[in-house]
Parts: sequence; structure tokens; C-alpha cells
Amino acid sequence: MKKPIITISREFGSGGRSIGKAVAERLGIPYYDKELVEQVAVETGFDPAYIAEHGEYAPSKSMFAYAFSHLGTPGIMDGLSSADYLWVKQRQVILDIAEKGPCVIVGRGADYILKDREDCLHVFIHAPKAFRAERIVRLYGESEKSPEKRLDEKDGKRKVNYKHYTGEEWGMSQNYDISLNSGIIGVEKCVDIIVGLVED
Amino acid sequence: MKKPIITISREFGSGGRSIGKAVAERLGIPYYDKELVEQVAVETGFDPAYIAEHGEYAPSKSMFAYAFSHLGTPGIMDGLSSADYLWVKQRQVILDIAEKGPCVIVGRGADYILKDREDCLHVFIHAPKAFRAERIVRLYGESEKSPEKRLDEKDGKRKVNYKHYTGEEWGMSQNYDISLNSGIIGVEKCVDIIVGLVED
Repeated sequence: MKKPIITISREFGSGGRSIGKAVAERLGIPYYDKELVEQVAVETGFDPAYIAEHGEYAPSKSMFAYAFSHLGTPGIMDGLSSADYLWVKQRQVILDIAEKGPCVIVGRGADYILKDREDCLHVFIHAPKAFRAERIVRLYGESEKSPEKRLDEKDGKRKVNYKHYTGEEWGMSQNYDISLNSGIIGVEKCVDIIVGLVED
Repeated sequence: MKKPIITISREFGSGGRSIGKAVAERLGIPYYDKELVEQVAVETGFDPAYIAEHGEYAPSKSMFAYAFSHLGTPGIMDGLSSADYLWVKQRQVILDIAEKGPCVIVGRGADYILKDREDCLHVFIHAPKAFRAERIVRLYGESEKSPEKRLDEKDGKRKVNYKHYTGEEWGMSQNYDISLNSGIIGVEKCVDIIVGLVED
């Protein structure tokens, strides 16, 4: 299958990022996650922390004020809200990255943005809540909020952001070529399946 | 992975049935599709054609009348509508089949009905509309309605039926362990991946 560009959408804590990284390593192709954030930062002047937080999450009430504090003049955003401006710029960065050749892109609606390219394999990774809760505490540590609440908040925002900018339901099978339950199938086996599809 | 019971949910025309049959053959385990309909017919007294048509589709207005024509007395349905009675009986047949051991069950909300069993692998097969339209004309022939309309009607009814009896969204990745786009991945490769997961 000639699908050298792989987009990975994922539920928070499902291991989608680790899977994306491992797939990129196995295939010897670039991996974009933080790298994408940095590129968007250069393009927009937004703070990388702001982009990481808002680039795929629903706009919050305080987003406007926060965003402006990182820009010289609001005028450079062409009258768009900071959320919309970020989406437009992020979209362009993703389109440019795909033009360069084979790669793995994690999150940020890349599946939707690249849906008309025939050389993309679109992957969704999800897992049962208990699996993800254990994983985020192990990887990111405890916080004041319960792991379940952190999962709900993060995925809730991703869902709203995706719906807002694509009009589609985040997580619907039909938006992806393959969706995998990493909690049942296992992170390593997910990597094997994806690599197997691309190399086939 | 010890998941010897495989449920396959599928968009109409996606090849889910062929995939289910091939998986069952490769693993040497029973396959339930029409076989399930026949068993439900014995249990309920409904006509097999009626069960095939209504067992996983939204109730139609004419359902009541049609159903009653196949029963001696309405009383045997314990006050349930024919649609609900069919769901209850079909559910019990699916639970009984799973008790017997490894098998493949296609459609009929089996993923939801068996969701609490840990020995089940839940699969969803979907495909782009063009792929499915070509496939249903080739397999089932032309009809007065356009292939696209036939797809929309059939899947629309499955969606409503699933929502009605499970409260869940039909086709959401999170309801399945693996969802595959057979139009992109190919029917044979889908079989390989599923067999690979079960045999692993």
C-alpha cells in the first residue's frame, strides 16, 4: 500500500504518540508532534506552550487575551480570532509538511486536513479509560484532578475543536483507515500493524 | 491474544460479511449470519425473511402488521412490540452462541450484546461509498433505486436500530477493538489482520 504519510489521531493517554514515534522510527521517516508546534510558532509568533495547549483543543474564554499577549499587533491575524488564526496557520504547516514527503503527523486534525491526498494512511488510537488513566499517571504524574477527569477534559476539548473546524465527529471509524484499541491490542502490536500496512 | 469470539459490524457493501466468513474459515470456527437468523426464527416463530430484514434495521411503520401475520397469537410476545421482542430473542441467541465457544458473529449488535465478555474481539468494517456502491451492484445486482440510495437507507436503518437498542453511536471507533477501511486496506488484508490478532 503506497501510503507513506501517516496521520495519527488519538485519545489522551492511549499511547498514540508513542505509537506514532515508533512507526516513524521503524520506517525511518520524520515524526511531527512538538516539531510541528515549533514550526507553527515560527509562522505565527504564538508561544509554543500556547500552541501545544490550544492547537487541538477547544477555544477557552481566556484564549483571546492570552494570544494577544504574544503578538505585537492584532492586525497581523487578518481579523481572525486567535483560535481561527492558529487553525489556518497550523493547517498550512501540515499541508507543507505533507508536500515534503513521507512522515508521521500526530494530532491537530491532520487526518481531515490531508483527507484529499491519496498517499495518506489515517489512524485513530483509542483505549479503555482504566488503561489510559493508569498510563497518564505513570507518564505525566499525579495532579490535583483525578485521572478520569483529566481524560474527560482533554478529550472533550479535542472533540469540540475537531467538530468546530471539520464539521465531523472526532473518533468516528469512517474518518480513519484504521482504528485500534491499544489497551486490548497492545502498543507494540499496533505499531506492527501500521508498519505492516505501509510496507505492504 | 485470547479473543476467540469475533463480532463483525459493518457498513452495507463493505465486505464485512465476506471478511467474517473468511476469518471463520481460516480459524476453523463457526460463522453466524444466516445461521443466526434461522435460530432466531425457531425461537420466535418469526419468518426468517422478516428477521433478516428487521433484525438489525430500524422498525418500520408496517412492522407490527407484518410480524403478527407470522405468529399464532400476539400474546406470546409478553406485551412487547414485535421489534423489541425480536431484539430480546436475538440477544439471547447471541449470548447462547457465545457460550458455546469460538465463533464469528456478523451484525445484529453482537458487539454491544457481548461487550462484557473479555474473550471477544470487536471489529467494524467500513469503506468509501464508491467502493461499496460498485460492490453491491456487482454482488446483488441493479435495482430501481441508485446504489448510493440503497447504501444510505440500509446504513441509516442500522444506525437508528443500534442507537435505539444500545444508546450508542453505530460506527464510533471506541465501540470496537479494531475498525478497518476495507476499500483502502483490501478485503484480504483485513482478513489477515484479524486472523493475526486472534492467533497472536
